[in-house]
Amino acid sequence: MDAKGGVPTLILNMRNIRLKLEYDGTDFHGFQVQPALRTVQGTVERVLSELLQGQVRLISAGRTDEGVHARGQVVNLKTGSRMSCETLKRALNAKLPMDVAILEAHEVGPEFHSRFSAISREYEYVLSTVRSPIVRRYAWYIKYQLNFDALKEAARLLIGRHDFRSFCVAKSGVDGTECVVYSSNWKRQKELLKYDVEADRFLHNMVRIMVGTMVEIGRGKRSAADLVEMLGAGDRRRAGPTAPAHGLFLTEVNYGRTD
Amino acid sequence: MDAKGGVPTLILNMRNIRLKLEYDGTDFHGFQVQPALRTVQGTVERVLSELLQGQVRLISAGRTDEGVHARGQVVNLKTGSRMSCETLKRALNAKLPMDVAILEAHEVGPEFHSRFSAISREYEYVLSTVRSPIVRRYAWYIKYQLNFDALKEAARLLIGRHDFRSFCVAKSGVDGTECVVYSSNWKRQKELLKYDVEADRFLHNMVRIMVGTMVEIGRGKRSAADLVEMLGAGDRRRAGPTAPAHGLFLTEVNYGRTD
Repeated sequence: MDAKGGVPTLILNMRNIRLKLEYDGTDFHGFQVQPALRTVQGTVERVLSELLQGQVRLISAGRTDEGVHARGQVVNLKTGSRMSCETLKRALNAKLPMDVAILEAHEVGPEFHSRFSAISREYEYVLSTVRSPIVRRYAWYIKYQLNFDALKEAARLLIGRHDFRSFCVAKSGVDGTECVVYSSNWKRQKELLKYDVEADRFLHNMVRIMVGTMVEIGRGKRSAADLVEMLGAGDRRRAGPTAPAHGLFLTEVNYGRTD
Repeated sequence: MDAKGGVPTLILNMRNIRLKLEYDGTDFHGFQVQPALRTVQGTVERVLSELLQGQVRLISAGRTDEGVHARGQVVNLKTGSRMSCETLKRALNAKLPMDVAILEAHEVGPEFHSRFSAISREYEYVLSTVRSPIVRRYAWYIKYQLNFDALKEAARLLIGRHDFRSFCVAKSGVDGTECVVYSSNWKRQKELLKYDVEADRFLHNMVRIMVGTMVEIGRGKRSAADLVEMLGAGDRRRAGPTAPAHGLFLTEVNYGRTD
């Protein structure tokens, strides 16, 4: 309520801005703001608050862990500022450090929420089959021979609605551990192997544990059929190790027609 | 001469080993060894000397400047060691830091010399048309609109035998400043523009000045036809600025049938 007892015009006039971000996760302590640590959220919020002259809070489609990269993270924020989205994008990019960038800025309806409005997320995980200095920051180097057909077969078995309790860190999954994987596939690009996966949602470390497990299958230490048993077990200890963060990219967040 | 007055067996038995290297130039002070600075040559020579138990000196196809990367640098070294090339490659890669790697190791004839035996070199220069955190270490970000047709036309005009005195740092070109450019072309790859050039040899900073000049042409500040005038002028001040090092890769060194 303002002094005249009406609805504060500031709140009535609040705009909802959606941003698409790219970042190199190497030098951030993850996405989520943490006191005294350099995080993506903290870095972007500080610059936004300066530009929009008021404390800004970001809502993200999903918090990426330390070392994970993004080519398509989506956040939204409420602001009373009248600054155009194009100007905001340009001003942000001029002030942000070079390891984070604003790819897009759009005004969206008041009901849009980066996390709750999302209908699916896409991740990519990159393996390098050679010890390449040029790609080392963005790919997990695997020195073992991998059976590409076994990788593809394992990826295919992950498609569908499954309980992914074996594929997440303990205590994640407040809303249960069932997820729907819409696509899951490996492709070869010269010396790189790229795993693309889309699901309605992902549990904590889910993609990294899926990749760590598939790499064991690709090495012949386990069979693709073991995956089905692991999914049924509901026990983190049955799945493979967690692949390192630096090969993982959040590539896209998909919204329905309302976005 | 050894104690018996014959040719020392050590020298007779010297093998000539050719290595192909990849490196991320970001954290090296260039290729060439320099006291107290971290260089590619210094790093590789130190590990080689340890492994082969004797001081090893590398001869390179060409010294790359500070910040320039390589996917296909070639060096050779003489050693009395009997270590197999495969073992040497594996041992080197196990001991070298992650920003330099040995891609290949082969024994070659005694006459092979990385620099003098080379018949051509290939470089790639990468521009990014978007402010991308992921590619920023390996591409020059250009925020201006570039005319792709003008870039291609300019690149084409550089093909052939020309005096490149306008396209090198003063005092380079001990053996003159004439070079033969065999191919020179731009290609588009999503948001990246890649310039590939092959020549019999390159003068100091030649590719970077060619790219800096072509970017001015792409921006419309100069015309492609100006290039011909610049080539004729023989004056560094007539060409454009030197493009930054971090977009440049030495990609290949080519040898004749004797390699």
